[in-house]
Amino acid sequence: MKKIFFTPGPTQLYPTVITHFKKGLDEDIASISHRSKHFQEIYQKINLDLKKLLAIPDNYSIFFVGSGTEAIERTIQNCVEKTSFHFINGAFSERFFKTAQELGKDPQSIEVSLGEEFDFSKIIIPNTAEMVCFTHNESSTGVMIPGEEIKKVAQKYPDTLIALDVVSSVPYGNLDYSLLDVVFFSVQKGFGLPAGLGVMIVSPRAIKKAESLVAKGISVGSYHGFPMLVDFSKKFQNPETPPVLEMYVLGKVIIEMQAIGIEKIEKETEQKAKLLYDFLDASDTFSAFVKDIFFRSPTIIVVDIQRAKKDIKKMLAEKGMIVGSGYGENKDKHIRIANFPTHSIRDIKRMIKVLQSV
Amino acid sequence: MKKIFFTPGPTQLYPTVITHFKKGLDEDIASISHRSKHFQEIYQKINLDLKKLLAIPDNYSIFFVGSGTEAIERTIQNCVEKTSFHFINGAFSERFFKTAQELGKDPQSIEVSLGEEFDFSKIIIPNTAEMVCFTHNESSTGVMIPGEEIKKVAQKYPDTLIALDVVSSVPYGNLDYSLLDVVFFSVQKGFGLPAGLGVMIVSPRAIKKAESLVAKGISVGSYHGFPMLVDFSKKFQNPETPPVLEMYVLGKVIIEMQAIGIEKIEKETEQKAKLLYDFLDASDTFSAFVKDIFFRSPTIIVVDIQRAKKDIKKMLAEKGMIVGSGYGENKDKHIRIANFPTHSIRDIKRMIKVLQSV
Repeated sequence: MKKIFFTPGPTQLYPTVITHFKKGLDEDIASISHRSKHFQEIYQKINLDLKKLLAIPDNYSIFFVGSGTEAIERTIQNCVEKTSFHFINGAFSERFFKTAQELGKDPQSIEVSLGEEFDFSKIIIPNTAEMVCFTHNESSTGVMIPGEEIKKVAQKYPDTLIALDVVSSVPYGNLDYSLLDVVFFSVQKGFGLPAGLGVMIVSPRAIKKAESLVAKGISVGSYHGFPMLVDFSKKFQNPETPPVLEMYVLGKVIIEMQAIGIEKIEKETEQKAKLLYDFLDASDTFSAFVKDIFFRSPTIIVVDIQRAKKDIKKMLAEKGMIVGSGYGENKDKHIRIANFPTHSIRDIKRMIKVLQSV
Repeated sequence: MKKIFFTPGPTQLYPTVITHFKKGLDEDIASISHRSKHFQEIYQKINLDLKKLLAIPDNYSIFFVGSGTEAIERTIQNCVEKTSFHFINGAFSERFFKTAQELGKDPQSIEVSLGEEFDFSKIIIPNTAEMVCFTHNESSTGVMIPGEEIKKVAQKYPDTLIALDVVSSVPYGNLDYSLLDVVFFSVQKGFGLPAGLGVMIVSPRAIKKAESLVAKGISVGSYHGFPMLVDFSKKFQNPETPPVLEMYVLGKVIIEMQAIGIEKIEKETEQKAKLLYDFLDASDTFSAFVKDIFFRSPTIIVVDIQRAKKDIKKMLAEKGMIVGSGYGENKDKHIRIANFPTHSIRDIKRMIKVLQSV
């Protein structure tokens, strides 16, 4: 039986990914030099096409790192001397905060219970904060902070850098990148690639901040410090040998998503999410973990399965549908269903049909 | 025309790699969870089989990072409070030294000219050095420091940690890992995989050192600090989502190399290197850049092409043979020929035949 992965990531590969990988392997892409013109063209095209797809300002830099987790570390290391401010509502936003601590910074935070929303109108960010750090989509709980709320915070604190983890939301989100300074993701979620590559979108202001830290004698890391990354990115290269084949495939997927159109991808994501949430809201057996419709993630739907009193994950697996367990303490109380561009309306309807049968 | 890559890395893929990748893709390896039992089995098998292949002590840890370059950074960050000592004989050993500087340490070094050897009998390592850092095979010049020399240094300074970059030598080397504390490589060289994965082999003593830095309040990084890596490695997991598919393929290649036998791989590497060096020593047109036979790398053969007065790289490319340019200032004066397990005796003989025709 052919499986389909609705896991939060790694997830079902984007439909064309296997073909691109095989073609890339057959065409020696994995053997070309990371200093060659051929590689530079791959980097340059991603740089152009990703900016088009997500409406990123031209003067922003695109960096390639190892993972979303590395991107968290590099963001703090390059943009924070002493204090960052974190919106914590789950395991991944907490990792962002803890990373700042582990790097010897003194981060501050506001924290809400799992599945709950922030009351943005009441939050005051201290003026010692050099950077405000958001996790757009908290994969552990299925809460998405609407782009509009992030925008308001950015506009209220124009002198503070804004970092946004879009690991499990992008390409969905319709964000105003001109107000954001460091945005990052890994490719094994919304883009449906094998894991092993992180992408950072960095404003000139964030690079200046890294340079100012260096000028003060503060280490911003070595090969993945922003000053070194930006020097190499101007030549469309990485300081180290990056995953060339993976980048080749990412470039192909971005072009295909562009051809479909980001509006259509966003709209379909919302349609599929609505099908799932409508089903959950009407169900006697299942319910959406996130109650406030305004904060429900369209890309990671967290389902409370406690009333079902069955091993729903196993039951779905028997039908070939692989979903994520609940996160951490909610391991057995929730399932997590990813709704990425790779998942078709038909896939989601099939999933609902099986859940309905419980 | 089918190309063959003799480049120092990325290089020609190991003969079975494309098949493993395609099989892995078809079997959904890129979609499995990095917290699943299936993934843990992949990690655990590499851990076991790599230790067997290279005769690594059982109590050493195997960590997965993004690249050899990342491994350099993590080595310094986790094992050096103030001072490391570096043997510099080219661009990659210099990168190791500079990384220590970029991380705010105060490294010391001994430096020799490109292509020259160290006089180990005369070198005194200051007792402030917490770690001695070697680049086993300097890919930029084709100098390999014999394992015996590294062993003597390790034995002479038993209280100092020893780090060894084996990026472009491994699996060749016949090293005594029990005397080494941090050894690392990336997979796009001797193992012939696509780039995107670094492997670190770490002694209990190196982990203790990282823990002692943490106890002193010194940051060893976040998700890739040794204390966190070792906690996850005990569960055969990575803190972040690693390149799962790439690890699956690496595991397959290690098993295949084990079946061939490391002695046979070492012997064939030396035979192929001898064919090349013998040709160069007898040639009127070409010569080996490294004069001292004792320090000539068997895995990266650097050829002085100045007497040929021709674009040798282009000429070889027209015959389907892709070699590396000279490094840095020697870009047009040298070519660099990789001699990894993926390169057969027949491949090397074909290469020599073409060079003979000049």
